[in-house]
Amino acid sequence: MTGEAAFIAALRELTSHPAARGLADDCAVLDIGGETLVLTHDMMVEGVHWLRGQDPADIAWKLVAVNLSDLAAKGAEPIGVLLGYSLGADDLRFLDGLRDALEAFAVPLLGGDTVGGGAVQVHGLTALGRATCLPVPSRAGARAGDRVWLTGAVGAAMLGFDAVRRGVDDPANRQAFCRPVPLLAEGRALAPLVSAMMDVSDGLLLDASRLATASGVTLTLERGAIPLAQGVEQAGRADEALRWGDDYQLLFTLPPGTQPPVPAREIGEILGPGTAPLLLDCAPPDTAQSLGYLHRSSP
Amino acid sequence: MTGEAAFIAALRELTSHPAARGLADDCAVLDIGGETLVLTHDMMVEGVHWLRGQDPADIAWKLVAVNLSDLAAKGAEPIGVLLGYSLGADDLRFLDGLRDALEAFAVPLLGGDTVGGGAVQVHGLTALGRATCLPVPSRAGARAGDRVWLTGAVGAAMLGFDAVRRGVDDPANRQAFCRPVPLLAEGRALAPLVSAMMDVSDGLLLDASRLATASGVTLTLERGAIPLAQGVEQAGRADEALRWGDDYQLLFTLPPGTQPPVPAREIGEILGPGTAPLLLDCAPPDTAQSLGYLHRSSP
Repeated sequence: MTGEAAFIAALRELTSHPAARGLADDCAVLDIGGETLVLTHDMMVEGVHWLRGQDPADIAWKLVAVNLSDLAAKGAEPIGVLLGYSLGADDLRFLDGLRDALEAFAVPLLGGDTVGGGAVQVHGLTALGRATCLPVPSRAGARAGDRVWLTGAVGAAMLGFDAVRRGVDDPANRQAFCRPVPLLAEGRALAPLVSAMMDVSDGLLLDASRLATASGVTLTLERGAIPLAQGVEQAGRADEALRWGDDYQLLFTLPPGTQPPVPAREIGEILGPGTAPLLLDCAPPDTAQSLGYLHRSSP
Repeated sequence: MTGEAAFIAALRELTSHPAARGLADDCAVLDIGGETLVLTHDMMVEGVHWLRGQDPADIAWKLVAVNLSDLAAKGAEPIGVLLGYSLGADDLRFLDGLRDALEAFAVPLLGGDTVGGGAVQVHGLTALGRATCLPVPSRAGARAGDRVWLTGAVGAAMLGFDAVRRGVDDPANRQAFCRPVPLLAEGRALAPLVSAMMDVSDGLLLDASRLATASGVTLTLERGAIPLAQGVEQAGRADEALRWGDDYQLLFTLPPGTQPPVPAREIGEILGPGTAPLLLDCAPPDTAQSLGYLHRSSP
C-alpha cells in the first residue's frame, strides 16, 4: 500500500457517518433541511497537478472544473465554491481564470482562505451542490449484467499535457488539458437512470477498477470499443490513454436495454464478482504499469 | 496594500452572492431548504501557521479547532468537515490528533482529498454548520452605544508559541497554542443576543478593527479592562498580547444593559463612525507595529 493509500485507509477508520460514504465516493452526500447536499474538496499542487510555468488562469479554471466534475458525477447542480488559495507570483492572473470558470459554470464564490509562505503553491476548492435526483448515484451500484458506458473519448488531456510541456502548438488538446469542462448537464440527465457513476479523473482503468471494487463486481472493458481522442492511435499511445486521467468523462453503468439520454459509447459490461475487479479484453490489465493517476506527476 | 489584501480585494469583485457576505465575515451563510448553512474554509501552512517539528497531532487538532471557531462565532452547530491534506513525514500521527478533535467536538469527517508532492505541507479544512439562530451574527451589526465584550484572556497562545519554539516546559500555555478550544457552546448562547460577533484569530486589535470597519463604526477599547493570560504582564508583553492571535476568544457587542449569558469581560464601547475604526485608551493604536496576524509567521 502506498503512503497515500495507507493514510486513506486509516482515515476511513475515523468516519462512520453515512454522508461520508466510506470516503470511497467522489463526494459526500448529506441530507439537510429537506434538501440533499453534495460536497467535494479537491486540491491541486504545483509540479504535481500542473506544470511549473503554466498559465495561472488555467490552474484556476481547472481547480473549479475538477471539483464541479465530481458534482457532475452525482447529477448535482452546483450551489457555490469555497477557495483555499496559496499566494504566488501572479495572483491576479489566477483570478482571471477563476472569473472565467465561475461565469462559465454559473457558480458563485462563497468564501475561503488565502495564505502565503508556501514554497510550492497548493490550492484547494470545496464545491457544494444540490442533488437533483434521489438516490444520489454512487460508485457502488453496478450489478452483474449492467452495461458500462463512457461519455466521450480519452487521451486528449494526455496529448495536451505534452503540448504544454513541450511548448507545441496544439490548441484543441491544450484546451482539453488546461480547461476541462465538467459534464454537469450530462450528469443531471444520467443520474435518474444509472446504477453507478463516477468521473474519470485518474485514468479510465484505475477509475473503472474503483467503480468495480466499490460495487463488489467485475467490470470488463472491450478495448476496441473505448473511444480515443484524435491523434492518440497515430501516436502509438492507445494503451497509455487508458491509464491517463484528466479527461473528466463520465463513466457509468446502465441496466441492459437502457439507452443513455446523452452521447455516450458502450465500452463494456458488469460481471459477477471474480478474481480481479477489472478485465480488459477478458484479461486483467498489465499492472506492471500503473492503472492511472501517477501519470499526472510531473517528470 | 499587501499582496494578500490586494488579492482579497480583487476576489471581492468576483462575488456578489449574498451568502458570501462580501468575503468580509468569518463564514459564508447560505439558506438551503429549510435550514441555514454556515460554511468556512481555513488553511494552515508549515512554517507559517505551525513551527516545523511540531507534533502533527497538534496541527490536526488546531486545523479542526480554528475552523470550528469560525462556526462558533456564528452560533452554528457543526455538521461535518472535509479535509484537504498534504502528505508528510508522520501522517498517522496527524490522524491521532484529527481523531481527538473530531471526538472532542463531536463532528464527523465527511470527505476531502489527499495530495503528495508539496515541499511544504499545506492543509485545508472546510467546516459546515447549521445556524441555531437567525439572523446569523455577522461582524457588521455593531451600533453606536453597544458595549464590546471578550469571552476570556488573550496572550496564552503567545506564551505557548514561545514555549514550543524554545522547548520550555509550560503545559498550560502550550495547550493554549497547540490545542485551542472553539467556544461552540458560548457562541450558541450568545448568538441570539449579540449585535456583532467574531472570533479573535489574528490578534485582538486587528480583529476588533475589522469588526469596526465591517460595522461602519469606531470601536474603542480600554486597555486596563482587557483580560490578559497569566504571566503576560510579568513578561512585559501586555501590548504584544493584544496583537497576537490564536487564542480563539469570541469578541462581541451587546446593546447597553444586556448581560452576556456566558463568562465574559466588558472591554470597550462602540462609537459612531470617526477618523479611525479602532481606538485604544482613546487614541488610535500604534500602527508602526502590526495590529496582528504577522506575529504568527515563523521567524
